[in-house]
Amino acid sequence: MRQSASFIPTLRETPQDAEIKSHQLLLRAGYIRQLASGIYTFLPLGIRVLQKIEKIVREEMDRIGAVELLMPALNPAELWQESGRWETYGPDLMRLKDRHERDFLLGPTHEEVITKLVRDEVKSYKKLPLILYQIQTKFRDEKRPRFGLLRGREFVMKDAYSFHADRESLDEVYDKMYEAYTRIFTRLGLNFRAVIADSGAIGGKGTHEFMVLSEVGEDTIAYSDGSDYAANIEMAEAAAAYEKPDEEERPLEKRFTGDRKTIEEVAAFLQVSPERCIKSLLFTVDGHYVLALVRGDHEVNDVKLKNFFDAQVVELAGEQAVKEVLKCPVGNLGPVAMKNEQPVKVVADHAVKYIVNGCTGANEEGYHFVNVNPERDFQGVEYADIRFIKEGDPSPDGKGTIRFTKGMEVGHIFKLGTRYSDAMKAVFLDENGKERPMIMGCYGIGISRLVSAIAEQTSDEKGLVWPKSVAPFDIHLILINERDEKQKQMAEELYDFLRREGFEVLYDDRKERPGVKFADSDLIGIPVRLTVGNKAAEDLVEIKLRKSGEMWETERSRVFAQLKEIFERI
Amino acid sequence: MRQSASFIPTLRETPQDAEIKSHQLLLRAGYIRQLASGIYTFLPLGIRVLQKIEKIVREEMDRIGAVELLMPALNPAELWQESGRWETYGPDLMRLKDRHERDFLLGPTHEEVITKLVRDEVKSYKKLPLILYQIQTKFRDEKRPRFGLLRGREFVMKDAYSFHADRESLDEVYDKMYEAYTRIFTRLGLNFRAVIADSGAIGGKGTHEFMVLSEVGEDTIAYSDGSDYAANIEMAEAAAAYEKPDEEERPLEKRFTGDRKTIEEVAAFLQVSPERCIKSLLFTVDGHYVLALVRGDHEVNDVKLKNFFDAQVVELAGEQAVKEVLKCPVGNLGPVAMKNEQPVKVVADHAVKYIVNGCTGANEEGYHFVNVNPERDFQGVEYADIRFIKEGDPSPDGKGTIRFTKGMEVGHIFKLGTRYSDAMKAVFLDENGKERPMIMGCYGIGISRLVSAIAEQTSDEKGLVWPKSVAPFDIHLILINERDEKQKQMAEELYDFLRREGFEVLYDDRKERPGVKFADSDLIGIPVRLTVGNKAAEDLVEIKLRKSGEMWETERSRVFAQLKEIFERI
Repeated sequence: MRQSASFIPTLRETPQDAEIKSHQLLLRAGYIRQLASGIYTFLPLGIRVLQKIEKIVREEMDRIGAVELLMPALNPAELWQESGRWETYGPDLMRLKDRHERDFLLGPTHEEVITKLVRDEVKSYKKLPLILYQIQTKFRDEKRPRFGLLRGREFVMKDAYSFHADRESLDEVYDKMYEAYTRIFTRLGLNFRAVIADSGAIGGKGTHEFMVLSEVGEDTIAYSDGSDYAANIEMAEAAAAYEKPDEEERPLEKRFTGDRKTIEEVAAFLQVSPERCIKSLLFTVDGHYVLALVRGDHEVNDVKLKNFFDAQVVELAGEQAVKEVLKCPVGNLGPVAMKNEQPVKVVADHAVKYIVNGCTGANEEGYHFVNVNPERDFQGVEYADIRFIKEGDPSPDGKGTIRFTKGMEVGHIFKLGTRYSDAMKAVFLDENGKERPMIMGCYGIGISRLVSAIAEQTSDEKGLVWPKSVAPFDIHLILINERDEKQKQMAEELYDFLRREGFEVLYDDRKERPGVKFADSDLIGIPVRLTVGNKAAEDLVEIKLRKSGEMWETERSRVFAQLKEIFERI
Repeated sequence: MRQSASFIPTLRETPQDAEIKSHQLLLRAGYIRQLASGIYTFLPLGIRVLQKIEKIVREEMDRIGAVELLMPALNPAELWQESGRWETYGPDLMRLKDRHERDFLLGPTHEEVITKLVRDEVKSYKKLPLILYQIQTKFRDEKRPRFGLLRGREFVMKDAYSFHADRESLDEVYDKMYEAYTRIFTRLGLNFRAVIADSGAIGGKGTHEFMVLSEVGEDTIAYSDGSDYAANIEMAEAAAAYEKPDEEERPLEKRFTGDRKTIEEVAAFLQVSPERCIKSLLFTVDGHYVLALVRGDHEVNDVKLKNFFDAQVVELAGEQAVKEVLKCPVGNLGPVAMKNEQPVKVVADHAVKYIVNGCTGANEEGYHFVNVNPERDFQGVEYADIRFIKEGDPSPDGKGTIRFTKGMEVGHIFKLGTRYSDAMKAVFLDENGKERPMIMGCYGIGISRLVSAIAEQTSDEKGLVWPKSVAPFDIHLILINERDEKQKQMAEELYDFLRREGFEVLYDDRKERPGVKFADSDLIGIPVRLTVGNKAAEDLVEIKLRKSGEMWETERSRVFAQLKEIFERI
């Protein structure tokens, strides 16, 4: 493509509202432009990257036998009322009415539409399994759109859904998807990890997130330094083995602690280490009160709490609710002297059981207990893993020690089970003529988000550095002086020749200074730069590799052979 | 693709709510399914056709130097307020609010977005012209969605926009687009015509519609039987040469006609031919009253009226308004004795001027004039071409006679001029440093509509008959008996072989009766059917061409050569 006829508006200055590198560079190099908060236009370079990602995703989906279709963005509300999500999805769902005042929404995912479609057409186990996918524009009214394409309100997704007669078939397709995702992110040149994620009520290993490792990631990944274990921090099992300190149990004592509320303040005042404090937090779990106990140096993990109770909604109770239910302020909660009238379940993290002569709130304003010994001083408690894992904890798989890193989610595979087929009555007849709900899986990839994720991970201080698999062009051909007949002739001839040979070439034929052209070229980040300048008179062109910075001159006649060799190597 | 693993739900019955052939067949053959009125899912076969059309469109757009980008569906209201369309677009525009109560809309076209984009980035004539296009999902809340993909509420369009420093450059790109569109619709195998369309205020030959000829088309095309002239009936110039009958002008007379109102009733009663009646209709043109006169056998063309006055809105005045303004009922209007107090312009079709001893309303309930002679009996009239052309009229290009046919619009090219650049201040500096508005063109193709248009035009009584350029697959390979080892082996081997050779193959490996497979195959409409049945034992397969119905047996070893020959021929 001739750069003069394309639309690649580059910027010298870093746009002020772009916080992270990929966002800055995609704007500066002319790949995207914002239309409204979280809503972007893909400029000619941007859509080329997007389409190359789409092509790779399609190839890998097709390879595992997934079949493409295309569902509408406009979803009628009735369908989402069937699944229940019309009520539960909240303000992220973009809702609208048509001219007849009928409710619609713009799909953020398509479980409802695909479940209805398959329910209406498939009646027998003979037509299962079925693996369907689409690449389609989605909408989610993010509270805080940011980081360019990483968290937008209109974005491109690949979403796949599978339907099965039995769980074995789901497991098999899930594993194929896992492999396909691994191939996709590998082909995209990403440094990523598949991590165990929150599978909600399903439990087990029913879901993985594919995370691109990056400082700017919004998720924390707990991984082992001694194995390939990796999990979203929300999900990583705390597998530490605890031991009781070898110490006499002393008599329980109530102490005045005044307005000291936090673990740090109370621990310092009472001269007890935080590890001996019992942190007590009141939650509502699907409307019921639950007092959650963890060690003072640990944090309650509400996802684990939610999964423990197989609940939909877990929320920390407010100060007012705590006062009403437990008759004392938030900072004085504890399990020893609860004065509640309504029922409050108590669940404690395993580590709490091993505390000896600990301290906790006395359920009385201004007072804490010391010398608390769990089994002696409070009973009726369920013990479970309800805390966040910490760096330094042993890896749950028994190999190595847990470390943390940041990641951005670019893919998610999930065993849905019968969540939607139950709600929407998607049933089939099995071999025995018995009606059963279809078992489902869903599998997403953030296509437009990947543009940013790749840019974030592969760029350098001069600009973008695309892996060849998704670069908008293979070669950036630069003509230094368009008024020099010899140069111009060689550049034009190379432009035609290279395209005939199957290379995608961006040809900078603009009337600009060489400095501008070189800076733009580094910014745009095409893998190979080919410069036709003064040395054209000697039949020489310059080759430069964007990533390594290697640069050399070569004879015109040797260009093709060298390019072939380069593209095999990089 | 193995049919057993795909999702091609065919129907034996014709769906009741599908009125036209293409809609019925696309549903029956498993290409689309309706999700809500005017909102469709493209099933696996449907999206393959859609993508093939997209590919052809992309190739032809790229060939004329148009550059692809992708704009968002969500458009902020502010932009449309700048252009004025937020107010004028009406209920077809799908509007919604985001979580912050900000107004958005779902783009039915993208003039505003592209104009803002180019306005923000292009400041100099040196960056012009610019031709940008996208293939993107659009939304329009049709009052009466129907005919499947022909008139939907969510649909795929190719929309292109060009920006120019001068009108010559626009003309040049417009012509290139015209050629590209002609190539596209030719490659799609369509019987189409480019017709002159309503260019509104711009006038001249500033716009063409590309119409697929079809009985079910919603537009009427006036074409010449003696040249390649074709125009939307709204636009076709009435070029008849009129002559005054050689007859004495008789004195004007008022006659009682009672409650006879229509031309037919009045003409019969007064024994005057309709050609001698002056039909008078009151319109509001941008809020002003206009009395339009045409001959009794002609019809007022409101598009011509609108263009004559360079107006935005032309509407027929209601009975109430007529009474108020002209003090008489609708059926007694005429230009001779107007009793209006407020100003009413009178515009007459050229043909009116040539009436001798005609008849018209007397602006008095129950009375008409006879022996009306225009120049003698009423003055202050502007004469213009304001009637619809009729079959039998001479062609405006002077060659042949006008005939009518029906068409469905699948493309539209339009010289926008400065409509948007003026409103949205998209200006550039010309060679002399002078600020000027950009001159624009816009160019649309209804991609998803084309799926229906092609289906409508090419199908037969057995099902769809795709041209090879857009067929979802090249070959439909049918295995008759999947339990016959010899048949199965040959079919499997052919499936692998043909795909290796670059053919796209749908392989019917289902456990179904041969009758079902053949009927489905005819319904689905892939160009070539290859059947492996009993004769596999003799190393024979059967080839059938869907379109012509030709069918023959051939040896396995000759299949490839014959297929190659077929695909060169069809």
